[in-house]
Amino acid sequence: MSSGPIVRHARREDVPAILELIRELADYEHALDSVEATEQKLLSTISFAPSSSTSTVPAADETESTSSAKPARCLILTSPEGTPAGIALYFYNYSTWRARPGIYLEDLYVKQSERNKGYGKRLLVELAKEVVAMNGGRLEWSVLKWNEPSIKFYESIGADMMSEWVGMRVDGEGLKKLATLLD
Amino acid sequence: MSSGPIVRHARREDVPAILELIRELADYEHALDSVEATEQKLLSTISFAPSSSTSTVPAADETESTSSAKPARCLILTSPEGTPAGIALYFYNYSTWRARPGIYLEDLYVKQSERNKGYGKRLLVELAKEVVAMNGGRLEWSVLKWNEPSIKFYESIGADMMSEWVGMRVDGEGLKKLATLLD
Repeated sequence: MSSGPIVRHARREDVPAILELIRELADYEHALDSVEATEQKLLSTISFAPSSSTSTVPAADETESTSSAKPARCLILTSPEGTPAGIALYFYNYSTWRARPGIYLEDLYVKQSERNKGYGKRLLVELAKEVVAMNGGRLEWSVLKWNEPSIKFYESIGADMMSEWVGMRVDGEGLKKLATLLD
Repeated sequence: MSSGPIVRHARREDVPAILELIRELADYEHALDSVEATEQKLLSTISFAPSSSTSTVPAADETESTSSAKPARCLILTSPEGTPAGIALYFYNYSTWRARPGIYLEDLYVKQSERNKGYGKRLLVELAKEVVAMNGGRLEWSVLKWNEPSIKFYESIGADMMSEWVGMRVDGEGLKKLATLLD
C-alpha cells in the first residue's frame, strides 16, 4: 500500500483529469471564459509519458521529446486514494546570461479539496530536481500580484520576486497585425 | 546587391558575434558581471541552422530540433554592410488556457551604433510570423520597468503590459535547497 502521493509524468489517458484541473484553476483565477483547451488540443501539444510506463518517479527522458509544436510537459500528482489531485504544466526556458536551459512552470494547481497536504510543494520540488539534473540555471514562474497567500508560500520555499521586470504580450489580432507590419 | 538587412537563423560560426552582442546587452542592463555565457556554452545550448544553409528567410524547420538541453533558437540580423547588428534569442512557451504553443523572446538586442533603423521591429516581426506560422497563441517577453523607451516602443507595435503578474525565480543555492527539501 502506498503511504504518500505519487508524482509522475502525465500519460495520454490522464488528459480528461488534466482538463478538469485546468478548468478548476481557470475558475479560481476568474478566467474560466478564457479556457480554449480541449482534450484534443492538449493531446496534440503536450509531450506525454508512454502509457506502458510504470515508473512512479518523474523521468523526463522517458516522455516524448519536446518540440516547437509540443513544448509542454505535465507532472500529475495522485493522492494516496488514487485521485488526480494536482498538476504542474511546464516547458524549457533559457537564460542567455548563463547560456543554460531551465524550467518555466506555466501552471501549478492543486484541487481545492486536496489543499494543505504539501502537494504544491511536492510538485515544485520535483521540478527543481529536474532543473538540477539537467544542469539548468533557473526554475521560474509567474503569479498574480493579488495572490498574496501563494506569493508567501513561494517565498517560503526560496523563490525571489522579480519585481523590477514586467511581462509584455502580443496575441490575437495584434499578433496577426505585427506579423504583417513590414509587408 | 542587398538593399536591406538580412534576418536568418544563427549558425555555429555566428557564435563569436552572438556572444559580443550578449555582452553589450548585459552592459546596457548594468549586468555584465552576471554573464557566464561562453562560446562553448552557447554552442551546446542553442539549436543552430546548418552552416551550409543559404536561406535568408528564417525557417525554424531547417534548424536543429530544440530539446530540453537545447531549448533556445537565435535569429541574427545582418546590416546591409554585412555587420551582425542584432539578435533575438527565444524559446517555445505554452499557454494552458489555449493549449497552444507560442514564443518567448528571452533577449532582443540591437547594437548601439545600429539603432533607429527599424532592426528591433524587424526581429519582432519575424518572431510574430513564426508564431502565426505555427498556429501559436502568443509572443511574449519581459522588460525592465525603468526601460520606458522600450516599453513605449513595444506598446506602439501592439504589445500589452502584463501588469497584474509578477515573476518568481529560484536559482543558485536556493534551487539546490528546494530540490532536496523533501529528502
